[in-house]
Amino acid sequence: MTEAWHNGPFMQAVRCEPAEHTPVWLMRQAGRYMAEYRAVRRHVPFIELCKTPARCAEVMLTAVERLGVDAAILFSDLLLILEPMGLGLEFTQGDGPVLHNPIREPADVDRLRELQTCDALHYVFDAVRQTRAALDPRLPLIGFAGAPFTLAAYAIEGGGSRNYLHVKRLMMTDAGAWNALMSRLARSVARYLVAQVEAGAQVVQLFDSWVGCLGVDDYRRLVMPHTRAVIEAVEPHAPVIHFGTGNPALLPWLREAGGRVLGADWRVPLDQAWAAVGHDRAIQGNLDPAVLLTTPAEIERRVRQILDLAGGRPGHIFNLGHGVLPQTPVENAVAMVRAVHEFSA
Amino acid sequence: MTEAWHNGPFMQAVRCEPAEHTPVWLMRQAGRYMAEYRAVRRHVPFIELCKTPARCAEVMLTAVERLGVDAAILFSDLLLILEPMGLGLEFTQGDGPVLHNPIREPADVDRLRELQTCDALHYVFDAVRQTRAALDPRLPLIGFAGAPFTLAAYAIEGGGSRNYLHVKRLMMTDAGAWNALMSRLARSVARYLVAQVEAGAQVVQLFDSWVGCLGVDDYRRLVMPHTRAVIEAVEPHAPVIHFGTGNPALLPWLREAGGRVLGADWRVPLDQAWAAVGHDRAIQGNLDPAVLLTTPAEIERRVRQILDLAGGRPGHIFNLGHGVLPQTPVENAVAMVRAVHEFSA
Repeated sequence: MTEAWHNGPFMQAVRCEPAEHTPVWLMRQAGRYMAEYRAVRRHVPFIELCKTPARCAEVMLTAVERLGVDAAILFSDLLLILEPMGLGLEFTQGDGPVLHNPIREPADVDRLRELQTCDALHYVFDAVRQTRAALDPRLPLIGFAGAPFTLAAYAIEGGGSRNYLHVKRLMMTDAGAWNALMSRLARSVARYLVAQVEAGAQVVQLFDSWVGCLGVDDYRRLVMPHTRAVIEAVEPHAPVIHFGTGNPALLPWLREAGGRVLGADWRVPLDQAWAAVGHDRAIQGNLDPAVLLTTPAEIERRVRQILDLAGGRPGHIFNLGHGVLPQTPVENAVAMVRAVHEFSA
Repeated sequence: MTEAWHNGPFMQAVRCEPAEHTPVWLMRQAGRYMAEYRAVRRHVPFIELCKTPARCAEVMLTAVERLGVDAAILFSDLLLILEPMGLGLEFTQGDGPVLHNPIREPADVDRLRELQTCDALHYVFDAVRQTRAALDPRLPLIGFAGAPFTLAAYAIEGGGSRNYLHVKRLMMTDAGAWNALMSRLARSVARYLVAQVEAGAQVVQLFDSWVGCLGVDDYRRLVMPHTRAVIEAVEPHAPVIHFGTGNPALLPWLREAGGRVLGADWRVPLDQAWAAVGHDRAIQGNLDPAVLLTTPAEIERRVRQILDLAGGRPGHIFNLGHGVLPQTPVENAVAMVRAVHEFSA
């Protein structure tokens, strides 16, 4: 039996097949910009929310219904995988995530343990199951994880970073330690994503959110082989959306690393991004999230512009170029989704 | 009489003429990474240093001698021009610059007054004169200013920013107010740079340090005409180095805005950057500043790689892709300069 989601616009676009309208979702579509989410968070700290599957399902389903998007994504966090790998993770009020024992020196690398089984992350798979069970069967559920570089950067910097100096120093000075760390992350992430697929996700997104701080040569030599290892391990199970941001010059090499769908940010026009990753792949993007702080008229103008650049070619998934900003008025996000559906139908 | 600097490697590269070696300097070459600079700063707050011409000359000459670079740059700050334009500027310890009365709404734009004369910035021109007088006559002195977008972003955000939401919101929602603000900045910056040339600078650099947060279409429509106005006003007086960072997709449009030399960051390989800006222009760049935190051997390897990509074509000025990081060991900066000279001779 073919499930309903299989022939919906989202999975059609993933396969570069024509669809009745351009599918759309928003990165971080369930989040602080939404009153219903803030109401939940008033009683539940972020990490507790991530570990309560019923709540994860609830906040995501609320967002999907409010926005009218074409896919749900697991409600979770990139960094949870680092906890069972041995890092002390905390989400501080306002300042974001902190890792209490970052990897700084080559000798620290062995403190990051490979995830041999994903049992410790049982709450994630429960969230996948509960979200899938409650979700409209016509909509796919997207699982996700951080790409090895972005996870390594968090593990080494110990939190947010401006110039990524610690991770670059380790990467540039000790290729042996670096490749050991990245291989361990790659194998762990691959297992984690396959387990999400087994729990009920139809497609997964690999977030390389911080990769744009790298030049092309460093990416190719020191990052690409590890990302490729993840994607090769996962794609027999489900298609991968490979998302990077911050450096359009990397797009051809993100393609080389793999992914059925490549995600691009707003720095590069959509047609140019698609040409860079090749028209045999689907493309996801790429409205500047700041546009959602303007007006419905301006949002419509820019949605139309991106759809024009896509030119009706099958294989476009509309999205922002990065996550929804907390300052976004929800009605503007709704206006964006409506405009994509209306102008592409 | 032709001055000595005119036939040195730096000005030859600016004109895309063959030079005896590839000229090199570092953005922020006099700064916190240097013990001599920290010694001066122990007694003098940053803004006071900027307003004491003899000190400006001293810290720059010390850096030029210590590094053996092929050019000096005025010691100053991008934001000083905003003070006589009406913004309350303060450099706080550790947190960087703060503007106390940022422009937030279209109605605020008139608070930013056009700089009709540069008299209020007399200390800058004194610093140019004193640096020029004391500098080796074979080395050119580079003047500089912020590009209109980067100055507007500071004026609107009120300091550093992560997502540039205030500036993007104003830019995207009120083109009239935005263009009024940008025109006023462009005319002020042009006067300021011409005055630096008249005081003794041989070349000027326009820093669009924050422009990489923009996509191509916004840059072309809302920023490029204003940057072009600055460069067209200045180039009859001295060649302009036009530097942007953070988005390689902008390079062809930075070229359209103008500049005898285009500056590129490390996100894109040098040969690709040069092709994007055209071989009729000189190129400046583009070592990742993080490389200076590694070892002399790794620095040499990467210097050689960039020189190989330049391929001996006349018109390459070696530099970092952004300013020297405070954590940089001075001996590594010296090793970089030495490697550029040795490998390109």
